[in-house]
Amino acid sequence: MSPVYFDHIAGTPPYPAVVEAMLPYLKEHYGNPSSLHQAGKAAKQALEQARTQVAGLVGANAEEIYFTASGSEANNLALKGVAQARQKKGRHIISSKIEHYSVLHPLKSLSRQGFEISYVPVDEQGIVDPQAVQQAIRPDTILVSIMLANNEVGSIQPLAQIGKITRDKEIYLHTDAVAAAGRIPLKVEELGVDLLSLASDQFHGPQGVGALYARQGTRFLPHIEGGTQEGGKRAGSYNVAGIVGMGCAARLIGRDMPDISRSLTNLHQKLINGLESKIGDIVITGHKSQRIPGHVSLCVKYIEGESMLLFLDMQGFAVASGSACTSLALKRSQVLEAIGIDAATANGSMVISLGKDNTEAQVDRFLEILPPIVERLRRMSPLYKLGN
Amino acid sequence: MSPVYFDHIAGTPPYPAVVEAMLPYLKEHYGNPSSLHQAGKAAKQALEQARTQVAGLVGANAEEIYFTASGSEANNLALKGVAQARQKKGRHIISSKIEHYSVLHPLKSLSRQGFEISYVPVDEQGIVDPQAVQQAIRPDTILVSIMLANNEVGSIQPLAQIGKITRDKEIYLHTDAVAAAGRIPLKVEELGVDLLSLASDQFHGPQGVGALYARQGTRFLPHIEGGTQEGGKRAGSYNVAGIVGMGCAARLIGRDMPDISRSLTNLHQKLINGLESKIGDIVITGHKSQRIPGHVSLCVKYIEGESMLLFLDMQGFAVASGSACTSLALKRSQVLEAIGIDAATANGSMVISLGKDNTEAQVDRFLEILPPIVERLRRMSPLYKLGN
Repeated sequence: MSPVYFDHIAGTPPYPAVVEAMLPYLKEHYGNPSSLHQAGKAAKQALEQARTQVAGLVGANAEEIYFTASGSEANNLALKGVAQARQKKGRHIISSKIEHYSVLHPLKSLSRQGFEISYVPVDEQGIVDPQAVQQAIRPDTILVSIMLANNEVGSIQPLAQIGKITRDKEIYLHTDAVAAAGRIPLKVEELGVDLLSLASDQFHGPQGVGALYARQGTRFLPHIEGGTQEGGKRAGSYNVAGIVGMGCAARLIGRDMPDISRSLTNLHQKLINGLESKIGDIVITGHKSQRIPGHVSLCVKYIEGESMLLFLDMQGFAVASGSACTSLALKRSQVLEAIGIDAATANGSMVISLGKDNTEAQVDRFLEILPPIVERLRRMSPLYKLGN
Repeated sequence: MSPVYFDHIAGTPPYPAVVEAMLPYLKEHYGNPSSLHQAGKAAKQALEQARTQVAGLVGANAEEIYFTASGSEANNLALKGVAQARQKKGRHIISSKIEHYSVLHPLKSLSRQGFEISYVPVDEQGIVDPQAVQQAIRPDTILVSIMLANNEVGSIQPLAQIGKITRDKEIYLHTDAVAAAGRIPLKVEELGVDLLSLASDQFHGPQGVGALYARQGTRFLPHIEGGTQEGGKRAGSYNVAGIVGMGCAARLIGRDMPDISRSLTNLHQKLINGLESKIGDIVITGHKSQRIPGHVSLCVKYIEGESMLLFLDMQGFAVASGSACTSLALKRSQVLEAIGIDAATANGSMVISLGKDNTEAQVDRFLEILPPIVERLRRMSPLYKLGN
C-alpha cells in the first residue's frame, strides 16, 4: 500500500500542471529577468504573469506583490522592513502569542534593538480577541502582526475585525497568511491588511517560493539588500521557474478552492468525530468551526506525539507532531502553551492535515490504525498507569 | 538562426542532468526535510547529498554549507550575521570599492548602525592590493570582505594573500565567490577564507539557489530568522528541488571545469584579439590574465552600451551592459569608476561572458556583426563627431 500523506501543513504536493509550467524555465528560458535582451525579457514576462496570478489569489494588484524564497522570508521582510522604515514614528509593535517562529524570532531581534513588543493572548480555542489588540494600541504603535490561520491548531483569526481597528490609525497591519492562503478565501481589502505573507508550497506550488503583499504606499525597507530586483525591496537573482510555478498554483487553487474546501471540511469533521468516539482522553485543539479545512490537531494524553508519528509512519501514514519547522528541536509548543494546554498533555500533540487528494477511505483506515497504536503506547507509558 | 547567449555572468543554462535530478523532487518527493516521517526523510537525504556535493566544489565539509536562495542572500547573511555576532569585539569592517551591491548595500546599512567600513581601492586592472588590506586593519577590525572575481570586469583577486594576512588575527575573511565558483578552481583552505558565498545559476545549476560556506566555529547570527533549518542559521522552507539541482551542478562543474576553462580562455582571448584589431577606441577592462575564463569586458568609446546591447540583441546575440543586477537602474558603474574609467567612456561598457556551449564560430560571427553596429552608433553620436 503506498504511503498516505496527511501532513499538508508541512507542504503540499505541487499540481502536475505547476511542474509542467516550470519546466521551460528550467530548461530553455534561463535568461535573467533583469537583463535587457530577449532571453531576459522572456523571463521577465513570465515573472510578471506570475505576479498577476499571485495577486489574483489575494485580491491585490500585481505591483503590490514582492517575491521571496519562503513565507518565513516574507515575514522577516515585513516585520524588520516596516520596523526600520517607521522607527521614527514609533517603536511599538503588537503581535500574538501564537505566531510562527518566523514572526516571533524577528520580533525578539527587534526588541533587542529597542523596539517594544506587546503580545496579546488567545483564548482556549486559539483565537485573538480584537478588543485585546485595541487595548494594546499606544501612540507609538507602528505595526500589528497577527497570523490569519495557525498552522499548529488551525484556528482562523478574526482579522477583518482587527483590520477595522488599525485602519485610519496609521498603524500597519501585517498577517502571516502562510497556512491560510489557498485554504480559505481571502481578500486583502476585506481583511484590511497592509502586508500579508504567502508560501507557494502551502497551495500546491513548488517549495522555496514565497511572496509578500504590501499595499501600495506601504513603507518598508529591504531585508536582503543588493540589486534593484523587486523595486529595490528584495535583492537576489530570481528563481524564475519557482515563481512561475507559484503563479500557476495560485491560479489553480483560486479556481479549485471552493470544492476542495467543502470536501476537506467534511473529511476533517469525519476524522474528528471518529477520533473522539474511538480514543479516550484526547483533546481536540483549536476552534471548532473557525479552522482550516482539512486541519485536525489534537493532544493524546499520556503518550508522546513523536512516538505516535513514528508508529503511524511505519504503517504508511505521514502526520506531524507539533510544527514541522520545529520538529527537529521539540520542546513544548508555545502555541499549545498559549491555549492553556499543560506540558504533559502537549507532549502528545499531533497535527493531521488533509489535502485535496486524500480520500474518505484513507481517513477510515487511519481511524482503524491509530487506536491500537495509542493503546500500545499507553500500555508502555508510566504516566498512563499513574493517571488511570 | 537561433539566438546566441553571451551573457553567462547573468546566469548559465542548467545542465540537462541537473533538471533531470530536480524533477523527482518537484513531482513525487514533496516532503518537508524538517518532517520526521519517511516523506520528510527522503527530502532530507537529498538535501544532505547536495550539501556534500556543494562542499566538494569548494573543498569544505558538508556541515559548513548553509543553503540560501541566492548569492545575494549569502552575502547579506555573511556580512550582517558576522557583524551582529561580533560587534562586542569590534565594529570595523574592511571591503573594496568593486564589490557587488549585495555586499556594498548591507555594508551601508551596517554603517548606519554604527559600524565603520574602510573601502580599499583597486588598481586600473581591478585588483586589490593585499598591502592595502593589511594597512587598513585596526584593533577593532572584525571582518574583511573582498570578492574573489569581479562580475563586471572579470578580475580575480589575490585572495590567498589576503587570507595569509587575516589568518591568526581573529579577523574573519569573507569572499563573494559568486562569479568565481564553477569558473576557476577554488578551495577554502588555500584561500584562507572563513566565509564564502556561492550562487547555483553561475555554474549551470538552477536559478534562485545559493549557499554560504562558513568555516566550522565561525560565529554569525541568522539573517532570515524563524525555524531551526540550517542549524538555526537560515529559516524558511527548503527549495529541495533547487538545492538538489545545485548539488548536481556542483558535482558536474567540478568534473568539467578544467576542460571548460581551457576552451573558454582560448575563446575569450580570440574575442579580445578580434575586438582590438577590428574596433578602434575601445578599452578592454579588467586584468589581462587574472580574469574569469570566457569573460570579456570592454568600453566602446563614444557610444552607449545599452544601444549596442539592443542592436546585438536584434541580431541574435545576448550580451550585458554593466551588471545584470543593476541594468534596470543604469548609472555609472562603481566598478568602472574604481578602476579609473571616466564617465563618458563608462557609458559604452559591455560585458560578453561566454559559456561552455559557445563555439568559435559564434565568436567569429560576433566579430563580424559588432564592428558595423559600433560604426553605425558612432555615426549617430555627437560625442564621436566632437572627439574625432
